[in-house]
Amino acid sequence: MGSIGNSEVKNHNQHHEDGGDNGVNFSIQRGFGTKLKEALKEALFPDDPFRQFKKEQKPMRRVMKGVQYYIPIFEWLPTYNWRLFVSDLIAGLTISSLAIPQGISYAKLADLPPLVGLYSSFVPPLIYAVFGSSRHMAVGTIAGASLLIAQTIQTVADPVEDPTLYLHLIFTTTFITGVFQACLGLFRLGIVVDFFSHATINGFIGGTAVALILQQLKGVFGMKHFSTKSNMVEVVKSIVRNRHEIRWEPAVLGVILVAFLQFTKHLRNKNPKLFWVTAIAPMVTLVVSGVFTYLVKGQDHGIQIVGHLDKGLNPLSIHYLNFNSKYLPAVMQAGLITGVLSLAEGIAIGRSFAVVDNTPHDGNKEMIAFGLMNLFGSFTSCYLTSGPFSKTAVNYNAGCKTAMANVVQAIIVALALLFLAPLFGFTPLVALSAIIISAMLGLIPFEEVIHLYKVDKFDFVICMVAFLGVILVSMDIGLMLSVGLGILRALMYVARPASCKLGKLPEIGLYRDTKQYKVLTYPGVLVVQLGSPVYFANSLYVKERIMRYIRSEESSTGDVVEHIILDLSGVTAIDTTAIKALDELIIILGKNGIKVLFVNPRLEVMEKLIMSKFVEKIGKESFYLILDDAVMASQYSLRSSKAANNGQEVV
Amino acid sequence: MGSIGNSEVKNHNQHHEDGGDNGVNFSIQRGFGTKLKEALKEALFPDDPFRQFKKEQKPMRRVMKGVQYYIPIFEWLPTYNWRLFVSDLIAGLTISSLAIPQGISYAKLADLPPLVGLYSSFVPPLIYAVFGSSRHMAVGTIAGASLLIAQTIQTVADPVEDPTLYLHLIFTTTFITGVFQACLGLFRLGIVVDFFSHATINGFIGGTAVALILQQLKGVFGMKHFSTKSNMVEVVKSIVRNRHEIRWEPAVLGVILVAFLQFTKHLRNKNPKLFWVTAIAPMVTLVVSGVFTYLVKGQDHGIQIVGHLDKGLNPLSIHYLNFNSKYLPAVMQAGLITGVLSLAEGIAIGRSFAVVDNTPHDGNKEMIAFGLMNLFGSFTSCYLTSGPFSKTAVNYNAGCKTAMANVVQAIIVALALLFLAPLFGFTPLVALSAIIISAMLGLIPFEEVIHLYKVDKFDFVICMVAFLGVILVSMDIGLMLSVGLGILRALMYVARPASCKLGKLPEIGLYRDTKQYKVLTYPGVLVVQLGSPVYFANSLYVKERIMRYIRSEESSTGDVVEHIILDLSGVTAIDTTAIKALDELIIILGKNGIKVLFVNPRLEVMEKLIMSKFVEKIGKESFYLILDDAVMASQYSLRSSKAANNGQEVV
Repeated sequence: MGSIGNSEVKNHNQHHEDGGDNGVNFSIQRGFGTKLKEALKEALFPDDPFRQFKKEQKPMRRVMKGVQYYIPIFEWLPTYNWRLFVSDLIAGLTISSLAIPQGISYAKLADLPPLVGLYSSFVPPLIYAVFGSSRHMAVGTIAGASLLIAQTIQTVADPVEDPTLYLHLIFTTTFITGVFQACLGLFRLGIVVDFFSHATINGFIGGTAVALILQQLKGVFGMKHFSTKSNMVEVVKSIVRNRHEIRWEPAVLGVILVAFLQFTKHLRNKNPKLFWVTAIAPMVTLVVSGVFTYLVKGQDHGIQIVGHLDKGLNPLSIHYLNFNSKYLPAVMQAGLITGVLSLAEGIAIGRSFAVVDNTPHDGNKEMIAFGLMNLFGSFTSCYLTSGPFSKTAVNYNAGCKTAMANVVQAIIVALALLFLAPLFGFTPLVALSAIIISAMLGLIPFEEVIHLYKVDKFDFVICMVAFLGVILVSMDIGLMLSVGLGILRALMYVARPASCKLGKLPEIGLYRDTKQYKVLTYPGVLVVQLGSPVYFANSLYVKERIMRYIRSEESSTGDVVEHIILDLSGVTAIDTTAIKALDELIIILGKNGIKVLFVNPRLEVMEKLIMSKFVEKIGKESFYLILDDAVMASQYSLRSSKAANNGQEVV
Repeated sequence: MGSIGNSEVKNHNQHHEDGGDNGVNFSIQRGFGTKLKEALKEALFPDDPFRQFKKEQKPMRRVMKGVQYYIPIFEWLPTYNWRLFVSDLIAGLTISSLAIPQGISYAKLADLPPLVGLYSSFVPPLIYAVFGSSRHMAVGTIAGASLLIAQTIQTVADPVEDPTLYLHLIFTTTFITGVFQACLGLFRLGIVVDFFSHATINGFIGGTAVALILQQLKGVFGMKHFSTKSNMVEVVKSIVRNRHEIRWEPAVLGVILVAFLQFTKHLRNKNPKLFWVTAIAPMVTLVVSGVFTYLVKGQDHGIQIVGHLDKGLNPLSIHYLNFNSKYLPAVMQAGLITGVLSLAEGIAIGRSFAVVDNTPHDGNKEMIAFGLMNLFGSFTSCYLTSGPFSKTAVNYNAGCKTAMANVVQAIIVALALLFLAPLFGFTPLVALSAIIISAMLGLIPFEEVIHLYKVDKFDFVICMVAFLGVILVSMDIGLMLSVGLGILRALMYVARPASCKLGKLPEIGLYRDTKQYKVLTYPGVLVVQLGSPVYFANSLYVKERIMRYIRSEESSTGDVVEHIILDLSGVTAIDTTAIKALDELIIILGKNGIKVLFVNPRLEVMEKLIMSKFVEKIGKESFYLILDDAVMASQYSLRSSKAANNGQEVV
């Protein structure tokens, strides 16, 4: 190995000659500007978004590329054709049949007039079609966030006593969400969404699904009084307290409708081509139950209906935004939490389909698109929209090719608003509940949770905290506890970085973990590999851990450790606290006659070690590029010192 | 290299035979119990505290060792001798001469009766002598925390209008601090203190020093009305507003006293043997200025004095603890923040002297000792004590050998309380101010800040945030902002782990960073080293980054990348979100005809990859133990596929 007689090999020669002893390069020092630029680039532009423009020479084409970059519709519309449109039309029709019942149902969840749900399926999809980067996203309202907004805003405004104030505060919340999301996208802070792990999202969705199903018992039982809180205990208490309001008629209708909806899902699972049956089932439920209720005069039997709905498109609502400081804290809280949450859901679903189809998807552009869609939504009587899991999946299965499917959806919903709105007023509430229950039953991630349990117990705990937190306390507390636990875990990795004792693979000369492989070790020479950055949060631990390696080596082998070799290949960064700790370590070990050698410090680490005069202090000869060289040198000095000792003893 | 003909080499054979292809060991799987135990051990017992007991066979000796472990006095007292005592006596006398003036001054800072400061130099040092693990710690009150407690408690109780309530709340705060510190030690949560970085502590101390000096202008100018807030703007405003109260007499006396104190420091710096001059200077200041003020009837000239002090030792205060829910939030806040803060100071100073002298020091035991000392302190009319920097340094320089120096200090202070207390009542307030100013002038860490600026700009920013936060806003806000920024930096490392492109060192066959060394790369084969754990917080980034490596490789060399080899040696952990991201990466790259190989996954990572069926899915042949093997295999398959293509073209 190691000899290369290959004409294809290229020689990296952009840097100076290696400058130091033992092959270590001490001569590279980047300026502060360079380092700052590189750090900012990694932090905010890891996907190098401007690469397309850089290549272009002509200014006009550069501007064109820029416009195409920021407004994706200019990228796909010029090459749009009839064949693509047919696909998008079918997909658009399919998702509209889902949009109308879900729009009305989820608006009910948020204690909003049903029309607001329909409005929200008209303007936002149009905006997304212009700015969205995903091909498969189907825009619409989402169940979990609808309930969460309602719960937060209800702490400052009552939807029954002052519905106008409540409505205006919901628009304001949507405005805040839009501004927040667009800012996250503009400042490329997708990093915030990264802290919602797979486990947190699964647990939250599962918990929300259960909480929403519980909420639907109100509609199913035809009850008039019900807990506004989503936690299980409150809901059960409230049902028991108002048990005299329970009616059997809506309950029977509800069970039949849920059974019907679940049956259509079963059909799709058996034959995926029948996805359209599942997709139109909610619409069928709405129409059939509406007609049925009208014919049997359901209202006389305790089956409540939605009530009167006006015809017409979205009225303007920009003048309703209310930034009164009395309500602002609740509005901000609701806006920020649901903003991040709906982003996490929308980006995750968009990405997963983009991966399957190898189509473009850009998290930062998505954030801007979502932000603009909520911003304009708040001006036109819409509330929070995102890319819901179920609707996007239907869109994908219906064969959508571009965001044009959202335009079709918007047009269909607009037509419904213009001509059919009053008819939807006859929908029984229990049908809305049945639609929500059926949608939610599919969202409880049983298999995913079992997988988490098997692979990663801590992820499982994070997931269960979100799940139980949502159903037993409240949605935001559950979410925050789970995210907090995730961050705690991240800090734990930071505070307790892994390290291991290395030994030499026989015949190969490379060093590997002694726990993992059959390797050779040398008495008196201890090789330890450090991982992760070493800095204030773990420098004390790293010091303690190294001392412990030495003690356990001495007690297990009986040999006195004379050299400890630290493999720094995995140490990606270091700070001043850690350099101080290394300094202390060398002093302590030196007093005990142990010499410390360092192997392969990385560029960032080497720079700091040189600037802090650490290298100067301990000497360049303590640094090695190759682990085996360091071990061999230690071995040699060990033997020569023993020989000297022996010599003295003989004399 | 690589061949070992060495009889000293030992063969690690504790594990099964390597099980997989390419030399990778797929067969090691630890049980959940083992993993949990190892994780807990690293998190809470990194220093393996029970190692002493494990070795002992006889139960009685094990108990003995246990008692000695938890109560360090039993470790050093049996071998204590006259020679050690002489050293400790001198050191104890020296620190007592500092304890009395500092006790009175700092109590004044906390708006407490001066006697409480003296009480706090009697009981706590005795407790520390029994439980403390450090040999050099000198226990006493600390300036920064004194001011911080006062500021927090003054939000709920006025020290002038209701001094009794105020005093009782301070005792309660001390009680909370004690319980909190002892719990941190018992549950081995020293990790909390780890998050106070070197930079934060330096900035906070510097800021506190400036804030304290500003506060002393009250005493120096002999003013009666003064801002209770520590921030610069408020203090300057308050001086301007009450400028008619300014008296020249105390100002002159103050300047003379500060000059005297600074001169003694200058003496010590020139000749370190004269440290005792600096040490007794505050006592001299107290006595001389007291006598002077008495003789010239200073009170008639605007020189205020401490006032009447009672004789007698600490009265009990356990029955004064006040847990009224009205005050509890402020008390808790003050107790927890000053608790962590004083621990950070005390542990840091103890450790730094322990390193110099190679004497024992155990962070967790220190926390228990500090906790007990504040707990018993709160029962006996003491307020918060810790190991102050300056006093501990004096103790070390005076040649203390054991914690007996603290016993000597306690006895001297007790004698002073019993017989001399009334005399200290004649001390002019301006003398106390001069003592504080002089102590604080030495604490502004100019050189340290310059060092931070040179070595690590981010550490410098963290330091300046603490410094400016303390002097411009308030002590706790400054501290929290700085710690928060440090945690943000830690999370940044977590969210954006470093990675690098590797190339082969010619003639050696090892792979190193292409930016750092002159290495060889192979067209079509990209080698990337990942660092740090890969998990939810960075899995998306890691994916994006790898895609970017491929793009930049293709655009810079013009070759199509066909193999990407990920060196996982530095990846210390992985979670389910990251495994899913890797899965997506392989799918996307697969669609673009790029094959992904993994090299040297560590034990923890391998376990999860196997459990999640990731290995099963992508095949064991995609894992290599040796980077060079993976590169060579890629090279080979590259050539054979090209050969096949060429063949086809020819036919």
